[in-house]
Amino acid sequence: MKVLVIGANGQIGQLIVDSLQAAGDFSPIAMVRKEEQVAAFKEKGLDSVLADLEGPVEGLASAMEGVDAVVFTAGSGGKTGDDKTLLIDLDGAVKCIEAAEKTGVKRFVMISALQANNRENWNDSLRPYYVAKHYADRMLEMSSLDYTIIRPGGLLNEPGNGKVSAGGKLDRSTIPRADVAETVLEVLKTGHTINKSFDLVSGDDSIADALGKI
Amino acid sequence: MKVLVIGANGQIGQLIVDSLQAAGDFSPIAMVRKEEQVAAFKEKGLDSVLADLEGPVEGLASAMEGVDAVVFTAGSGGKTGDDKTLLIDLDGAVKCIEAAEKTGVKRFVMISALQANNRENWNDSLRPYYVAKHYADRMLEMSSLDYTIIRPGGLLNEPGNGKVSAGGKLDRSTIPRADVAETVLEVLKTGHTINKSFDLVSGDDSIADALGKI
Repeated sequence: MKVLVIGANGQIGQLIVDSLQAAGDFSPIAMVRKEEQVAAFKEKGLDSVLADLEGPVEGLASAMEGVDAVVFTAGSGGKTGDDKTLLIDLDGAVKCIEAAEKTGVKRFVMISALQANNRENWNDSLRPYYVAKHYADRMLEMSSLDYTIIRPGGLLNEPGNGKVSAGGKLDRSTIPRADVAETVLEVLKTGHTINKSFDLVSGDDSIADALGKI
Repeated sequence: MKVLVIGANGQIGQLIVDSLQAAGDFSPIAMVRKEEQVAAFKEKGLDSVLADLEGPVEGLASAMEGVDAVVFTAGSGGKTGDDKTLLIDLDGAVKCIEAAEKTGVKRFVMISALQANNRENWNDSLRPYYVAKHYADRMLEMSSLDYTIIRPGGLLNEPGNGKVSAGGKLDRSTIPRADVAETVLEVLKTGHTINKSFDLVSGDDSIADALGKI
């Protein structure tokens, strides 16, 4: 299964690429923005493709040619202004959804944020970011794609332990980025979470068991 | 016809309220954010209601009780950051759409921006703003409401002359705010533009004729 990872140079993105590569049944392709990032992935023996989330849908569609699934984990991050939140986290994401529809890539996994679906649970200091994630998710849900929306809690850089909790409405909590990456892998292995959206935090279940309960 | 004007204190909003009041068949209600704005409309003999676009949908729904149509012409403006573009121009607008659905107000007129529907025609210096308008419009088009989306060109403060051009894809041009307000009035008079979206600039047709060609 060829999987295009959009935002492959980000913290979760790199872990997803590594997990997919280690799993054997997957061929990750890192979608990145800069030439030097292409070189870095090549050194690790990984395929990559250059494309710009601020560019037209056509460029993103080209990057998706021959791909079986797309994982969107790009984000403008906290160092840029909310102009980039609008252009990347919202419009960039939706352009990828449109590119997938155009190219015929049905499977689309979105990394969102805990309770992005419920305005009343948005973190006040991050409200503008949540608006962008909220509408990217809604556009995906209204698309023709086989989507899964993963809404992780506060992201940690500690090692994953493979124990999570997944559900429609979870209390605020945290999760290691590595466990989010492993969850993406598990999501791609079966069709069980197609057209489902769920919160994800650290918990007591194995990832497979947690997804089985969704 | 009771018409709630959201953003009634804005430049176009005030003109819409005035046009509706002058037309006779309409009872405008100005939705505003501050107590002193309520007082200012009262002095002019106009009804108003206090509600906050950054607040919950329920508050907006309350403001729509008993109303026959909603006109959304609110905007965060150029003096605030793109955080407010996300919170007002996008999420505020969509919350009003949801409030209208909730309250059963079917008729919804949106003031958008020229070619907000076509990314390739967005004004480069205003791209983040266009992202917000684009998705507010798309959410409205996918709603259950009887919508009309008016996408005016560059807004001028000169007097209107009642001559416009309306169409699916017009070249960049300008239009007096007063002519946009008169177009809203004309849109509300008939069902002809229900579930239609169009660009609007100054032109050669009377407003009724221009809308008739849509």
